[in-house]
Amino acid sequence: MKMRKKAFMLGNKAVAYKGSGVVEVIDIEYPTFELKEGPGVNPANVGRKVPHGVILKTVTTNICGSDQHMVRGRTAAPTGLILGHEITGEVVETGPDVEFINVGDIVSVPFNIACGRCRNCKDGKTGICQNVNPDRPGSAYGYVDMGGWVGGQAQYVLVPYADWNVLKFPDRDQALNKILDLTMLSDIFPTGFHGALTAGTAVGSTVYVAGAGPVGLATAVSAQLLGAAVVIVGDLNDDRLAQARSFGCETINVGEGSVPDQLEQLLGVPEVDAAVDAVGFEARSHGHGAGAGESPATVLNSLMDVTGAGGAIGIPGLYVTGDPGAVDDAAKAGTLSLSFGTGWAKSLSFTTGQCPVMKYNRQLMMAILHDKVNIADAVNATAISLDDAPRGYAEFDAGAATKYVLSPNDYLEL
Amino acid sequence: MKMRKKAFMLGNKAVAYKGSGVVEVIDIEYPTFELKEGPGVNPANVGRKVPHGVILKTVTTNICGSDQHMVRGRTAAPTGLILGHEITGEVVETGPDVEFINVGDIVSVPFNIACGRCRNCKDGKTGICQNVNPDRPGSAYGYVDMGGWVGGQAQYVLVPYADWNVLKFPDRDQALNKILDLTMLSDIFPTGFHGALTAGTAVGSTVYVAGAGPVGLATAVSAQLLGAAVVIVGDLNDDRLAQARSFGCETINVGEGSVPDQLEQLLGVPEVDAAVDAVGFEARSHGHGAGAGESPATVLNSLMDVTGAGGAIGIPGLYVTGDPGAVDDAAKAGTLSLSFGTGWAKSLSFTTGQCPVMKYNRQLMMAILHDKVNIADAVNATAISLDDAPRGYAEFDAGAATKYVLSPNDYLEL
Amino acid sequence: MKMRKKAFMLGNKAVAYKGSGVVEVIDIEYPTFELKEGPGVNPANVGRKVPHGVILKTVTTNICGSDQHMVRGRTAAPTGLILGHEITGEVVETGPDVEFINVGDIVSVPFNIACGRCRNCKDGKTGICQNVNPDRPGSAYGYVDMGGWVGGQAQYVLVPYADWNVLKFPDRDQALNKILDLTMLSDIFPTGFHGALTAGTAVGSTVYVAGAGPVGLATAVSAQLLGAAVVIVGDLNDDRLAQARSFGCETINVGEGSVPDQLEQLLGVPEVDAAVDAVGFEARSHGHGAGAGESPATVLNSLMDVTGAGGAIGIPGLYVTGDPGAVDDAAKAGTLSLSFGTGWAKSLSFTTGQCPVMKYNRQLMMAILHDKVNIADAVNATAISLDDAPRGYAEFDAGAATKYVLSPNDYLEL
Amino acid sequence: MKMRKKAFMLGNKAVAYKGSGVVEVIDIEYPTFELKEGPGVNPANVGRKVPHGVILKTVTTNICGSDQHMVRGRTAAPTGLILGHEITGEVVETGPDVEFINVGDIVSVPFNIACGRCRNCKDGKTGICQNVNPDRPGSAYGYVDMGGWVGGQAQYVLVPYADWNVLKFPDRDQALNKILDLTMLSDIFPTGFHGALTAGTAVGSTVYVAGAGPVGLATAVSAQLLGAAVVIVGDLNDDRLAQARSFGCETINVGEGSVPDQLEQLLGVPEVDAAVDAVGFEARSHGHGAGAGESPATVLNSLMDVTGAGGAIGIPGLYVTGDPGAVDDAAKAGTLSLSFGTGWAKSLSFTTGQCPVMKYNRQLMMAILHDKVNIADAVNATAISLDDAPRGYAEFDAGAATKYVLSPNDYLEL
Repeated sequence: MKMRKKAFMLGNKAVAYKGSGVVEVIDIEYPTFELKEGPGVNPANVGRKVPHGVILKTVTTNICGSDQHMVRGRTAAPTGLILGHEITGEVVETGPDVEFINVGDIVSVPFNIACGRCRNCKDGKTGICQNVNPDRPGSAYGYVDMGGWVGGQAQYVLVPYADWNVLKFPDRDQALNKILDLTMLSDIFPTGFHGALTAGTAVGSTVYVAGAGPVGLATAVSAQLLGAAVVIVGDLNDDRLAQARSFGCETINVGEGSVPDQLEQLLGVPEVDAAVDAVGFEARSHGHGAGAGESPATVLNSLMDVTGAGGAIGIPGLYVTGDPGAVDDAAKAGTLSLSFGTGWAKSLSFTTGQCPVMKYNRQLMMAILHDKVNIADAVNATAISLDDAPRGYAEFDAGAATKYVLSPNDYLEL
Repeated sequence: MKMRKKAFMLGNKAVAYKGSGVVEVIDIEYPTFELKEGPGVNPANVGRKVPHGVILKTVTTNICGSDQHMVRGRTAAPTGLILGHEITGEVVETGPDVEFINVGDIVSVPFNIACGRCRNCKDGKTGICQNVNPDRPGSAYGYVDMGGWVGGQAQYVLVPYADWNVLKFPDRDQALNKILDLTMLSDIFPTGFHGALTAGTAVGSTVYVAGAGPVGLATAVSAQLLGAAVVIVGDLNDDRLAQARSFGCETINVGEGSVPDQLEQLLGVPEVDAAVDAVGFEARSHGHGAGAGESPATVLNSLMDVTGAGGAIGIPGLYVTGDPGAVDDAAKAGTLSLSFGTGWAKSLSFTTGQCPVMKYNRQLMMAILHDKVNIADAVNATAISLDDAPRGYAEFDAGAATKYVLSPNDYLEL
Repeated sequence: MKMRKKAFMLGNKAVAYKGSGVVEVIDIEYPTFELKEGPGVNPANVGRKVPHGVILKTVTTNICGSDQHMVRGRTAAPTGLILGHEITGEVVETGPDVEFINVGDIVSVPFNIACGRCRNCKDGKTGICQNVNPDRPGSAYGYVDMGGWVGGQAQYVLVPYADWNVLKFPDRDQALNKILDLTMLSDIFPTGFHGALTAGTAVGSTVYVAGAGPVGLATAVSAQLLGAAVVIVGDLNDDRLAQARSFGCETINVGEGSVPDQLEQLLGVPEVDAAVDAVGFEARSHGHGAGAGESPATVLNSLMDVTGAGGAIGIPGLYVTGDPGAVDDAAKAGTLSLSFGTGWAKSLSFTTGQCPVMKYNRQLMMAILHDKVNIADAVNATAISLDDAPRGYAEFDAGAATKYVLSPNDYLEL
Repeated sequence: MKMRKKAFMLGNKAVAYKGSGVVEVIDIEYPTFELKEGPGVNPANVGRKVPHGVILKTVTTNICGSDQHMVRGRTAAPTGLILGHEITGEVVETGPDVEFINVGDIVSVPFNIACGRCRNCKDGKTGICQNVNPDRPGSAYGYVDMGGWVGGQAQYVLVPYADWNVLKFPDRDQALNKILDLTMLSDIFPTGFHGALTAGTAVGSTVYVAGAGPVGLATAVSAQLLGAAVVIVGDLNDDRLAQARSFGCETINVGEGSVPDQLEQLLGVPEVDAAVDAVGFEARSHGHGAGAGESPATVLNSLMDVTGAGGAIGIPGLYVTGDPGAVDDAAKAGTLSLSFGTGWAKSLSFTTGQCPVMKYNRQLMMAILHDKVNIADAVNATAISLDDAPRGYAEFDAGAATKYVLSPNDYLEL
C-alpha cells in the first residue's frame, strides 16, 4: 500500500494521441482496479471491476507500427486516447482475485487482452477473446475500438485477468539484463513468429517476407529460428533492408525490379515455399518511382504470385474493416481487389488476424533466455525516455530502421 | 490382347465439347499408351509415352459442374475437347511398367492426374503434381489447360501412372452393387470432404455450405460424416435445397433474406464455426430478385460475414485466373473485390484449390463399403446412357437437383 | 444466501468409501469456499481459499470404473473418502471471484480439476494442471492422491475455478430433458472420444476397442461419431458385448479365440487401423478359461499385435504407478512386461493419460443437443437414487452392462 | 552401355558380414535390374524384376549403429550378407521404367526401400512400405529380414523404384563439396530429426537425448535446428559427450549421478519438455560401475522419469522382436519391463519405429545446402576407404566418437 501511495503521488505520465500526426506526453490518473470513462473507452466497459488485475510499473513499452495507423489519422481513434499495447512491467499491486502473480514479478503482457474463461481462450485463441471487448471478439490496450483498456505507454498500467494474461520471467536480474529482447515478447516477436508459422515455415523452407519494419524483421528472425534454409526480406526502404541483412537475411528492394525476378536471381526459381505479409493495408505500390501511391492489395497480390503451389501465406499485417484515409471507396470500406483466381489455381492457403501472443510467448522467452535468438539486435531496439516518445513516433514514421522502446521509469539506463 | 482388339473394333464413343452450349457424342480412337495430338493437348505432351498407364473400360463417368464452365463457353476450351474427369472403370489393358494393378480390377480414378514421383506428390499434394501438365502444377482429364489428357466421358480411357493413381475396389461384385456411391470417389465426394475438412469441420461443429449443387451436397454429407452438429445449406434453387433436406440438412434460400439472419433463426446466433464455398466464380448476387446478375465475390464476402471469429473457410468452388465471359474487366482477370478487412478482424483462414483426391478416397471408400454414408442418394445420382449425355448437360445446367452418371458400357442397367 | 442456509439445513448426503468392498451413504458438511481437512485431503491443500468456486446442487453424478479401483481396495484410498468425479449440477452459490457463471446455470464439470492459469492449462492440457494437486500435475474430485477435492457423489459439491472449469448448458429445460446423455460429458464420453481420437480414428477407419465397460462403449460411440467404417469391441462379458452390438458395433469375445483370428473373420485382415485400450491395469488374461487371473500387460500386448503398421494406440484405460493388490512385484510397482519390439517393428505410437475433458466437452455437448449421438443409450445409462449407490457399485462390479447415474436431488424421476 | 561394361570389368567390391565380429571386403557381382539369390535374400523376392531401378556408383556409404547389431551377432543375419543402407551415389544406369532420374545425377538414397504405390507410401509412411519385403511392412538395403536387397557398402548398388526413392542433389559440384554432410541424409540426419520431432521438440523446448552415438548427435543437431532452447545429451562415453559439447549441447554422464539430478543442475528442474531414446535395445544399465550389464528397458524407464507431464518421447533407437544375444528370456523375445504406470500418470506419448526418411530428407538437404547446419562436424564424419571398413567397424564398436563414411570409389580424397 505504501508503494501505491508513493506511485500515485509521483503521478502517471503517459503518451496520448492528440489528433492526426500528434502525440503528447500527458499526466493521467494512476490506475485502479476498475475501468473508468475516458477517451476511447467503450461505454459498456465503464465501471467494469477488475479484481483479477494487477497494476504494473512499466519497465518497457514499445512503439508499434499499428500505433502509427492511429497517429497518422487513419482510424477513428479519439483525441486523448492513451497509446501503447507492448508492455513489460513490474507488478506493484495485485487485485484481490490474483493468486499466482506477486508484487515484484517482472512480467510480459500479451497485447491481446483475454479473459481466460471463454470458448476462444480455452482454445488458445486469445486474439479473439469474447469477454473483453463489448463490440466484437478481440481486444488490446490503448487501441481504437478495442474496448477501451488504457494504453501502456505510461508509467503505470492496469492489466486485467492477470493470472491468465501475464508471462512471468523466472529471474528478475536475468530479465532486466535481457530486457531489450524480452520486451519484444508482448507483440512483435510472437506476431512475426505467428506469421512465419502460419505461412508454413519449417526446417529447410525458403521464405519471403514482405516488409522490413519491426514486424517483418521479427518474422525473418522467427523464420530463421524455425529452421528456414533462406529468408528473403523485401521493402522499399534501404535502411530497413540493411537491417535485415545484418542478421543473415537476403533482401530485395521491391522498387528495383519485379519480386519474382529478384527471387529467381537469389534462389534459381521465382517462387518460395512460404510467404508473409508484414505490411498490411497501408501498402504502397512500387515499381513506379517514389511517387507511387497507396495500393492496399499490392502486397497480397504479389505474395500470391511468388508463393509456390501448395504454399501458405501468413498475414500478420493489419487489414481493417474501415479506413477513412484510404485512396478509394473500396479501400475505405476495407475491400481489396485480389487476384484470387491465381491463389486458387495454386492451391494456396491464407491465415489472417491478430497473433494469439500467449500461444508463443513462453517458448520464445525460453529461446531468448538460452541465447538462441537476438531479437533486439535484429529489430535494432533503441531505448528512449517516455518524454521522447513524440520523437520516436516521428522517426519511426519517417522510416527509421529502429524499434523504439520507451522507458517510462528508471529500469533502463538511457 | 484379345480383349483390346475386340474393344478397338467396337470403337470408342465419347462426349465432345463442340462450342458454347453444345456437347456431342462422337467416335474417337481407342486409347494407346501414348499421348497424341488432339484438341486441347499441350504440344509439349504430344508423343509422351505412357508405359505406366492402364486402359479402362469405363464403368461410370459423371458430369461435373466444372465441365459446365467449359460448356457454357466460359473458358478457352477448344472445340472437339473430349470431356470427363470423373472416371470409374475396369482395367482392360496394363502398360508394361504397371506392377500392382491387373486386368479385371475395378478402380476409381482421382480426377487430378499425378505422377507419384515429384515433391508435391510425395507430400500428398496430388492436385498440384509437377510432372503431368507442362504449363503449371496440376492436371485433370478432359479439361482445358490441364495438359491435354483425354477425357473419360468415353467408353475407354487411358490413365497414366496407374499404380499410383488408381484406387482398386476390394471386391468386384460389391463394387458394382455400390457403384452409384463409389463413382463419387473420383471427384465430388473427396472434393466436398476436403471443403468440409479445410473449413475446420469437426465433431460438434455448426457448418454452413454455400451452394446446393452436387459439390455442395457432397460437402454437406461430408460434414455430417465428420460429426458436425448441424449442417446448413444455402442456395437460390429450391429443388436443390429440398435435396439437401432429404438427408437431414437445414437449408436457407439465400434469395429470401440475409444469410446471417436466417442462420440466427436456425442456430440462435448469426455465425457458424465452419463455412464452405461450393459455388465458385460463377456466383450470382442474390436478394435483389431473379434478375440479379453474376457477382463473383458475393459468396466469399458472405462467408466472411457468417464465419465466427477464429473460423476457417474451405473453398472447393473453382476460381479462375481468367474468365472471358465475366461481367467486368476485373472478373475477366480473375480479380475479386473482397472485404478482406472483415476476414482479418475475425482471424479467419482460407484454403483454396483442387482437392487432392488421393488423400481421401480410400477412407471414403471404406465408409461407403461399410454403409456409413449414402452419397449417391444425397446427391441424387441418376444414371443415363452415354448417348444421353447432351440431355444430362442441359438439365444439369438448368438447375436439376441431380448428379448425372453416364454409363458408357453395359455395367449399369438403365 | 437463503438458498445456502436452506441447503445446509437439509444436510449433504454423500457416498463414502468405507474400506475394501464397502461404500456407504453418509452425511457430510455442506461445502464452503475453502478446502478443509478430511479423508484424503492433501495437507498442503487444507485451508486453501476457493473464492473462484461455485457450489453445485448435484443434478447427476455417475459411478465410474476408476472409482471401482478404489472400492476394490486396489489403491491407498483412505476410509471416509467421499467418492465421485462425474458431476453435473445446478449452480446454487458463486464465490466472489466468479464472473461468467450464475446461480441457476446447469453445468457439466470436467472430472479433471484445473486452474486455468498454468502453462499446461494454457496449452489445453487440463488433465495435468500444475496448481491444484500439491503432489503432482493432475487432479480429480473424490480420488485418492489427487489433492483432496471432495467428491461429487453428494447432494452439494464445491467446484473451484468455476469460470474456467464448468461447461454451461445453453438451455435449462433442454438440458434436463437430455440429462442422461449430458451427464456423460463429465468423463466417459470425452474420455472415450480422446481414446478414439488419439488412436488415430478418422473417417473410414477400422477400429478395435478392448473393453466393453462404459468407457469402452463410449469409445465405440466416439469412433462412430468420428466416421469410423467399422468398430469392433472385445470383452469377456457377453452382456456388455450385447450392449455394444445394440448400437451397431461388431463384437468379439476375447475368451473364444485369438483376437487377430476373430478380427480377420470380420474384416478379412487380422489388423485394424486404430486400437484403444479401455481396460487398463486390471486386465485379465483370456484364452485359458474362466479361471484366468490378472495379467496387466495382456491388453496392451494384444493391441500391439492387432494394430496395423503405422497405427496408433489410444490408452484411456488407467495404469497406475503402484498397485498394492497386484499379482506380482513388478505389477505392484506399476511395471509391465511389454512386447515393445513388436510395437517398434510396426512403427506404432501410443498416447496415455487422463483425458483433458475440456478439450472435447463443448463439441460433444453440441453433438448431443443436436441429436447426432445417443451416448446414454449406448452405455445403458440407468438412474438410481443416491441411497442406492452401494447397490450400483456392487452390480457394476459384478459386470452389469450398465452405467449407473446417481440422482442425489430431485431433478430426475426415478 | 559403355559405362556399364567398364564398371563390370572393374568388378564390385563390397563389405560382407562373415560371422559374429567379422566383416570382410569381398568381390561381388555387379548389379543388374533383378534381385538374385544370395545371403539373406528372401526367396519370395528372388527373380524380382527391377526395371524401375537405377544402378549407382557409390559416392559415400556410412557405417551405422544398426549394422553393428548384426556384426555383433545379435541378429539372425546370415554369413555373406552384404552390409550397408546409408547410400549416396552417382547414377550410372537407369532401368527402362525410370523417367525423372538420369545418368550422372548425384542422389541420396533413403535407407528404407519403398514402392511409392502402396497405401503406406501414399501416406508418406515409407518406413513401412507394403510391397518390398515379403515378410512384413518395411525394408532396407543390406539388412537381415528386410527382404534381401543387397547392401550398399559396395562400389555399385541397385536402387529400386528410383523415381520415387532417390533425392537428386540440384548441383553436382555443390553436392560433392558438401558430401560429408549430405551423406547423412540417407539415414541418421532424418532419423535424428524424426526422433526430435516426434518428441515434440519445438522452438524454445528443453530436450534430453539419451545416447551420444551418431544418431544421438544427429538428434541433438536436429533439436537445435528445430529451435530448442537447450539440448542435453546423456551417455556413458566421455569422448562422445565431448563431441556433443563441440556444437553447443549440454551433456551429462549417466554413470555419474542420476539423470533427474543432473538435469536439475542444468535446468533448475529435473524434467525436460521432450526426450529422445537414441540408444535402443542394447542399452546398458548405469550407475553401478563399468561392469554394469545390459538392461534393455533402462533408457525408456529413465526417459519416462525425466519427461515432463504431457510430454512426448521419440524412440528412433531400435527395439527388436527377437534378440538371440539378450541377457534374459524376456529380452530374447523383445519384451521389456516398462514402468508404464509412470508414463500414464504423466500423460506421456510415445512414437516408435523406423524414420520415414523421405518425409524429411529434402528439407534437411536445403538446410545443408544453405549452410544452416553442419551435421558432418557434429557427428565427426570421417571418410575412410572401403578397404578400411573392417577397421571402421571395429573402432566404432569400441566407442569412437566418429561417424565412419566409406568411400568405395574415387569421389573423396582420403
